[in-house]
Amino acid sequence: MGVRIHIDAVGNFRFVYSAADADSPRLFIGSHLDTVPNAGAYDGTLGVLLAVALLQALHGRHFPYAIEVIGFSEEEGVRFSVPFIGSRALIGRVDDTLLNTKDALGISVREAIEHFGLNPRGIAQARISSDACGYLEFHIEQGPVLENLNLPLAVVEAIAGQSRMEFTFTGRANHAGTTPMNLRHDAMAAAAEWITAVERIAKETPGLVATVGSVQTMPGAVNVIAGEARLSLDVRHPDDKVRAKAVEQIIHLGQEIARLRGLSIRWSEQMSQPAVAMDPFLSSQFEQAIGKAGCRPHRMVSGAGHDAMIMAEQVPSAMIFLRTPGGISHDPAESVLVDDVAKAIEAGLYLLDQLALTPIFQKRTCRA
Amino acid sequence: MGVRIHIDAVGNFRFVYSAADADSPRLFIGSHLDTVPNAGAYDGTLGVLLAVALLQALHGRHFPYAIEVIGFSEEEGVRFSVPFIGSRALIGRVDDTLLNTKDALGISVREAIEHFGLNPRGIAQARISSDACGYLEFHIEQGPVLENLNLPLAVVEAIAGQSRMEFTFTGRANHAGTTPMNLRHDAMAAAAEWITAVERIAKETPGLVATVGSVQTMPGAVNVIAGEARLSLDVRHPDDKVRAKAVEQIIHLGQEIARLRGLSIRWSEQMSQPAVAMDPFLSSQFEQAIGKAGCRPHRMVSGAGHDAMIMAEQVPSAMIFLRTPGGISHDPAESVLVDDVAKAIEAGLYLLDQLALTPIFQKRTCRA
Repeated sequence: MGVRIHIDAVGNFRFVYSAADADSPRLFIGSHLDTVPNAGAYDGTLGVLLAVALLQALHGRHFPYAIEVIGFSEEEGVRFSVPFIGSRALIGRVDDTLLNTKDALGISVREAIEHFGLNPRGIAQARISSDACGYLEFHIEQGPVLENLNLPLAVVEAIAGQSRMEFTFTGRANHAGTTPMNLRHDAMAAAAEWITAVERIAKETPGLVATVGSVQTMPGAVNVIAGEARLSLDVRHPDDKVRAKAVEQIIHLGQEIARLRGLSIRWSEQMSQPAVAMDPFLSSQFEQAIGKAGCRPHRMVSGAGHDAMIMAEQVPSAMIFLRTPGGISHDPAESVLVDDVAKAIEAGLYLLDQLALTPIFQKRTCRA
Repeated sequence: MGVRIHIDAVGNFRFVYSAADADSPRLFIGSHLDTVPNAGAYDGTLGVLLAVALLQALHGRHFPYAIEVIGFSEEEGVRFSVPFIGSRALIGRVDDTLLNTKDALGISVREAIEHFGLNPRGIAQARISSDACGYLEFHIEQGPVLENLNLPLAVVEAIAGQSRMEFTFTGRANHAGTTPMNLRHDAMAAAAEWITAVERIAKETPGLVATVGSVQTMPGAVNVIAGEARLSLDVRHPDDKVRAKAVEQIIHLGQEIARLRGLSIRWSEQMSQPAVAMDPFLSSQFEQAIGKAGCRPHRMVSGAGHDAMIMAEQVPSAMIFLRTPGGISHDPAESVLVDDVAKAIEAGLYLLDQLALTPIFQKRTCRA
C-alpha cells in the first residue's frame, strides 16, 4: 500500500494511509497488539488486522481524510498493572509517575521502553494532533451476548463504569458443635445472605452487572463458625448514577444484614471508574453501515475497558464488537467466525464511504 | 488420701479410692489432662481436679463402690489427628493401626509412648474390668447455652452425632464485566443461596446445628465470575435420623439450586459419627443431685465429643457441664466461675451418696 510503518516511543505500531488531499483530517483505526498470558489469538490483534484488511480492500482508493492504523502496545496492563499505556501516550497521559512504575522485577516502564530500543523522551511526539477527527476500534466482544442473540456484530454505545470494592463481615468465630443456631454471629451466613442480595439487585437493575468473585472465611475450618468473611465486589453500569445508586443499596443491605445478625461490617473502594460514552454520530454511522452489510445493528454496552475508552477523552470514538463463540476469551480456545470477520470488513468499508460523504465529520477536531 | 497414683501404658493418670468392702464395683470419675495449643486452663483438667476435690471432701468416708479417678491422655487429637487415645485404651480400642499412626514428624503413637518412658505392650492392662459400674465426667460446656440461661450446671443427656461433608458447585468462570446476569452460571451465587438454605433448615429443625465454615472460590478474582465454589458442611444432632434427614434435605436443595442455575454439584462425606446417649439412670441421678445443690437441673446435648462418648460404649456414663463465661474455650481467656465449681462439687457429693443408697446401680456391670 506504499505506507511507511513507524513504531512510536511507547511501542505503538503505526502507519498513515494518506488522504486524497493534503491538510485533511485524520481518522484513527486500531486496537491493541499485546495480550494476557495463556491467551487466544484474537483479543486486540484482530482489530489491528481488520484495519489493515480494510485499507487493502480499498484497492488504492483514497478519501477526504487520512487513515492512521494503530496497533497499541500494553493495553492489558499485565507487566506493570497499569493498562492502556499505548493509548495513553496518544492523548498525552504518559507522565513521570507512569514511567517510574516498576514491574515485578523492579524494572520501570521507562527502562522497559529503553530495553526495547526506544527513546522515552520521544513520547510527547506520540500524541495525536488537532487533525484527529475520529477513532474506530473493531474488537471481539469477549462475552456471550451476540452469540446468544445470534448476531455477528454490535455497535458499542458506551463502556461501562466500574466500582471495585472489598467488604468484610465480622461476627464471632465459635465451635460449630456447641453453639446453637440462635446464639451465633456467623460471618459467612451473613455474607451468603448479602451475596444473594447483590445478585438480586443486579438482576432487578437493567444493564447492571455485580459480581462477588472472591470469598475468604476466617478461620476457615469445617468445625468452626466463621468469625470473619472477606468478599470482593465488582459493579458495572453504563450510567454512573445507576452504578452509584446500586453500590449505595448494596452497602445499605450489608449494613442491615450485619445489624440484624449482631455483626459488624466494613468496606473500602479500590476503584471507581466512570462510564465512557462512545461518539453518537460515529456510532449511528456504524449502525447504518452494519445494516448495509445485511446485519441487524444491535447496540450494546461494553463491560470491559478498551483503548477506545482512553481515546474518547480527546477524539470522537466508536467501537464495533464481533461475536465471540462461547463467550470464551483470554483462553487459547478464543475464536471468531470467518463470516463475522467478513461482515465486519464489509461494514467498515460502508462506514469509510459514508464518512467520506459527510463534510461535518471531517470538520470535527479533536480536543487535544 | 492414702491412694497410690499410677500412670497406665497410654499415659492416663489413675488412682483408686477404695470401697468400704472388697469385691465392690468401681465407679470411674475423670476427664482429660491434655489440651490444644494456645488453650485455656479448664478444658478437661477441671474435670480431673473436680474428681480429686470430691474425694477430698469425703474426709475419709468410703462407699459400697470404689472410685477410680482418671486423667485421660490425648483427648484432643492434636498430635496424631486421632482423638480419645486415652479413653480408647480403657475400652480396648487401641489397636496396631492406631499405634502405627504417625505425627507430623513421622513419630508413631507407639514410639511416642516409648519416648515418654512407658511400655506400649502394657496397653491391654489399661482396660476396664467387669467391676466397672459407671463413668462420670465433669466438663466445661465450651458453648454459650448455660450462660445464656443463667444456669451454673447442666446434665448432658447425649453427645450429638456429626456429619462432615464437602460440597462443590461447578458453573462457568467468566468475565465479570462482559457477562450479563441472565447468562451467568455463577458458582458462588449458587453457593450463597445454598448456605442461606442450610442455615434456614438448621433454624427450622429443633436441636440441629449446621455450619459452612470454609468457602473457596475458583479462580477467586475480583473481576471473574466464580467457576467453582468449594464448601465444607458440619451437621450435628442428638438423633441420627434427624441428622440424616437434614443432610438429605441439604443435598436435595443443593441439587435443586444447581439445576435451576444450570450448574453441577458434587459432594462427599468425610465423617458420619452416630450420636451417643448418656445413661438415663445416671443422668436422672445427676439431675436430682443438681436440684439438691439448689440449681435448676437443665438437660442439654453436647455438640462436641468427649471421653464419656467413648466410655459409654462399654460402661454406663454420665456428664455434667459447667457454665463457660462468654462460651469462650480453646483460648487463654477460657474461664469458670468459682461458685459454679462449688455447686458442681456439691452436686457430685449428693450424687455419690445417692448411688451408695442404690443397690441396683452397684449391681450393674460393664459391657467389657
